[in-house]
Amino acid sequence: MSDFRSRDPLRHAVTQLSRFPGIGERTATRLAYWLLRQPPEVAAEIADGIQQLRVDMGHCATCCNVSGSDPCPICRDPDRDTGLVCVVERPQDVGAIENSGAHRGRYHVLDGAISPLDGVGPDELRIRELLARVGSGEIQEIVVATDPDVEGDATALYLAQVLKPLGVRVTRLAHGIAVGTEIEYADRSSVARALENRREM
Amino acid sequence: MSDFRSRDPLRHAVTQLSRFPGIGERTATRLAYWLLRQPPEVAAEIADGIQQLRVDMGHCATCCNVSGSDPCPICRDPDRDTGLVCVVERPQDVGAIENSGAHRGRYHVLDGAISPLDGVGPDELRIRELLARVGSGEIQEIVVATDPDVEGDATALYLAQVLKPLGVRVTRLAHGIAVGTEIEYADRSSVARALENRREM
Repeated sequence: MSDFRSRDPLRHAVTQLSRFPGIGERTATRLAYWLLRQPPEVAAEIADGIQQLRVDMGHCATCCNVSGSDPCPICRDPDRDTGLVCVVERPQDVGAIENSGAHRGRYHVLDGAISPLDGVGPDELRIRELLARVGSGEIQEIVVATDPDVEGDATALYLAQVLKPLGVRVTRLAHGIAVGTEIEYADRSSVARALENRREM
Repeated sequence: MSDFRSRDPLRHAVTQLSRFPGIGERTATRLAYWLLRQPPEVAAEIADGIQQLRVDMGHCATCCNVSGSDPCPICRDPDRDTGLVCVVERPQDVGAIENSGAHRGRYHVLDGAISPLDGVGPDELRIRELLARVGSGEIQEIVVATDPDVEGDATALYLAQVLKPLGVRVTRLAHGIAVGTEIEYADRSSVARALENRREM
């Protein structure tokens, strides 16, 4: 009898894959069996992508975004407006705003939002780092792009409070009816925000 | 400027995770960002689970199931009935039948089902290996547990044709109304099979 290894590699792979959020044992089992039907290099390549992510990724000391380099490509791009900084909750949000193509400034990643119920106060976020950036004098406007929910609203209000005394302009993303949504089907809060934020024509 | 690595490890991880069936770029991005928020060993452990799966898993030369050893734990279990072999399409099916606790024999994994439209004929399946096992004389009954669909039915018929002349008993799993399903909600084919397979009381 030739033992390829003593423990059960299939069970081990399923256990490991199930650690991903939203992947239960059933899906993990499906993925593991799929891997077994692929050429061996597929598993090796996927494993490498996962492993290297955590080895290679650090944080940009300026904008606090996750990045493979410090400063990150956005912070070292000379064509970006250094006077305009968009503040977001999570690294993912940078991608969403970049995809819009409408922001030519830089970013600041807070790493969350103020949420007293979860024990997250201003000190748990990268607000100190933001204040230091503003203190260095180059920034004219902070666009707050936190989520339109209780935590995002609280964070936006807090930021306006601490930033305005430093002489910087603080704005927030407009909220209203999403482009492409018929008013009939828009959710109640979006309609309310759209009315509040109505503009002269 | 300190480059952690030249290529973008986040994009690389997302590309690799998207190779899994049913995981699109959106989900892959969510998983990658989740990994970035975990302690570094989480990514290393998951990567190891994936990588080792393909390194450690081979096939049992007897039953053709994927296995970490050859022969597999089921084929080398002396308490199993060697005269009774359950034939399934896929390695996953072994798990389903094992979980029922109702089969005390061994298995044979065909690695698919006859499907002329997909170019899968008897020669593409592990039928030669099954005939060799039957030829060695120990097997008295083959329980065909292929799926109750066109391909599974065709495979079952083919197996009956080639196995019966060898003097072995060939049976097939009963199909009918699933336990727990009310007749009102049972699908048409299951009701039809249940009527066909009705038993004396």
